[in-house]
Amino acid sequence: MTNLPDDPRHALMLLSSMVEPGDAELDDLLGDVGPVEAVRCIWEGEIPERLRRITSAAVACTRNPRERCEALVSATEACGSRVLIPGDPEWPEQLRDLLLICDTDEPHLRPPRCLWVRGDGDLAAMCRRSVAIVGARAASGYGKHVAQFLAADLAEAGWTVVSGGALGIDRAAHMGSMGRGGPTVAVLASGVEQPYPQSNRSMFDVIVQKGMLVSEWPPCSSPMKHRFLTRNRVIAALAAGTVVVEAGMRSGARNTARHTAELERVLMFTPGPVTSSSSVGVHRLAREPWAARLVTRAEEVIEDVTGIGGPMAPEPPRQRRPFDDLTEVQARLVEALPLGFVRDEGRLAAAAGVPVVTAAETLDRLRELGWVELQDGRWRLARSKVK
Amino acid sequence: MTNLPDDPRHALMLLSSMVEPGDAELDDLLGDVGPVEAVRCIWEGEIPERLRRITSAAVACTRNPRERCEALVSATEACGSRVLIPGDPEWPEQLRDLLLICDTDEPHLRPPRCLWVRGDGDLAAMCRRSVAIVGARAASGYGKHVAQFLAADLAEAGWTVVSGGALGIDRAAHMGSMGRGGPTVAVLASGVEQPYPQSNRSMFDVIVQKGMLVSEWPPCSSPMKHRFLTRNRVIAALAAGTVVVEAGMRSGARNTARHTAELERVLMFTPGPVTSSSSVGVHRLAREPWAARLVTRAEEVIEDVTGIGGPMAPEPPRQRRPFDDLTEVQARLVEALPLGFVRDEGRLAAAAGVPVVTAAETLDRLRELGWVELQDGRWRLARSKVK
Repeated sequence: MTNLPDDPRHALMLLSSMVEPGDAELDDLLGDVGPVEAVRCIWEGEIPERLRRITSAAVACTRNPRERCEALVSATEACGSRVLIPGDPEWPEQLRDLLLICDTDEPHLRPPRCLWVRGDGDLAAMCRRSVAIVGARAASGYGKHVAQFLAADLAEAGWTVVSGGALGIDRAAHMGSMGRGGPTVAVLASGVEQPYPQSNRSMFDVIVQKGMLVSEWPPCSSPMKHRFLTRNRVIAALAAGTVVVEAGMRSGARNTARHTAELERVLMFTPGPVTSSSSVGVHRLAREPWAARLVTRAEEVIEDVTGIGGPMAPEPPRQRRPFDDLTEVQARLVEALPLGFVRDEGRLAAAAGVPVVTAAETLDRLRELGWVELQDGRWRLARSKVK
Repeated sequence: MTNLPDDPRHALMLLSSMVEPGDAELDDLLGDVGPVEAVRCIWEGEIPERLRRITSAAVACTRNPRERCEALVSATEACGSRVLIPGDPEWPEQLRDLLLICDTDEPHLRPPRCLWVRGDGDLAAMCRRSVAIVGARAASGYGKHVAQFLAADLAEAGWTVVSGGALGIDRAAHMGSMGRGGPTVAVLASGVEQPYPQSNRSMFDVIVQKGMLVSEWPPCSSPMKHRFLTRNRVIAALAAGTVVVEAGMRSGARNTARHTAELERVLMFTPGPVTSSSSVGVHRLAREPWAARLVTRAEEVIEDVTGIGGPMAPEPPRQRRPFDDLTEVQARLVEALPLGFVRDEGRLAAAAGVPVVTAAETLDRLRELGWVELQDGRWRLARSKVK
């Protein structure tokens, strides 16, 4: 046949339009003979029976594969997108880690064959310091607030946010990051020309300007349920770690969380009220064997993904109180003095459990500090310290 | 001297009224010669210089130690309390574990010398299956709600709640447990005759009926700041594990948490909103090296304190959806059918990435299940499934 593609990129685009990601037989074929030859094998039926059955409908619909490739190229260019394939300088090499976790039970976890991207940046560079923020679509106001401020502070610190394109946590994360001028990467389960859902259209327009839309599926692919689950592995693999902000027990975010842990990337979660069904899934993560890390602030996220030797999150600020400046013995004596009463040294020493001589010295010092006053040879709390 | 106590219990009561818990020199003396002889040594000055200085004020105030003991016995009986000492059948043996964590830097962590108790139960029996619930006084409505329902469900499951006597989390825990008829143990930093704070007086009255008030200090001892910190080790040591419900960075509950971990008991916390200052301290626990366990329900607490072999907390209930009953291929085909359009089998098979023959069989099955309908030889979604 002369009407077959001779460009590996075109061949991978064609195959991506025919066979869902993670087909072990197709990937083996690609590894053995390369994309151009793989297309020829498929069109000439020189392939295993199962792969033949899966591709037969598409082969039957496509009289001229080269024309089909040209149509895919046109559709790709028409929406301002381009296609990355393994080996391109811009291809994120960390996607290869998916080879470590895919197996015969979970072939869909194999690395993507190619990626459609829309945006001016360099995907590999953008993801070099990146954190995924994922969570429920049906997020609470609290969850969206947390995702937004976390993403904003990560952007401020120079970290890219990776997420899906859904309403709820995904959207809040993108908006938070872009609000501080940070780049964000939205990995989609549909074609990049019409990202799903349409209600996020204006956000996708901004992402194309400031960050990047990414998809394994060619333009005009619809966002099927199983594609979201397949897509999740790419989010987990691109980023150094994943923060799950809110998730019910059924949320797809828990699926991304599992991939993150299996990929030995850092799995984190932000807690919420135990009374909120939106947080049930994240709290469960903490009790699963993956040892998800609890994070409350961007500094803690950065501490966790950079690991030992990275920046340590500072302790949350403590409120100072005047009492803190007293020594143990000083504090005991002040407390042994009941408000509005006077006491002699002996009784104060006994009540505070300190030697009389120590009590006498300490009370003098406390008078200098303005804590106690003498009244007719006995001690009382200074008025200035009485609240 | 003939006016010295000859009953070890009376001697320990007297010593407790003179020297704060955790004095290493006094405890060594008690270990060497016993309480009766220790009192004699103190009154006759046959003790190390430091201990002599600490006790001198009290010795000087107490002309007749035996009379002082009788006064302590009267005060103890007057408020319906009694004194437990090590060796009593009712003495909680687990307090001995404190010997493992006290050292010269933290002598105040030594086991108590004796305990005043108010209540009809048996303290050792009551604490055999017990969990401590502690947290901030300035708790939020959320925190109090969590403490209360956790304590209630623990009581229902036959577990005793141990806590302090403060407003906030302590109070909510006691009320929750007693509301379900559970026994609770309140460990105080003041005498048992007038538990602090007074605003909890009616609660303390109920605890005396249903549970037990416990203190290391004799009646009429006031609740000094350092006594709360000293008291915390007893809460941690009595229970099989401690749940911290809400705590600011400065809360004494964090101190109880540290003792719990050092005692190798189970340290747990309930999370809250990251935006709440009341939860900052508990979230910090999760990031400290103590490996505090996140818990959201009483079942999880019981799972954690009973350890391997104990009851496993059931998975939180999942919401079933109609889509869940479909196989992977069935779901793909349903999703490949756009709402309001009809499609032939070949196109559906290509869109869903399944062989045509499989698509045909599966579509027939989906028609039986009521998901799809035939219209002029092509398929569309059944109206009943269109929301």
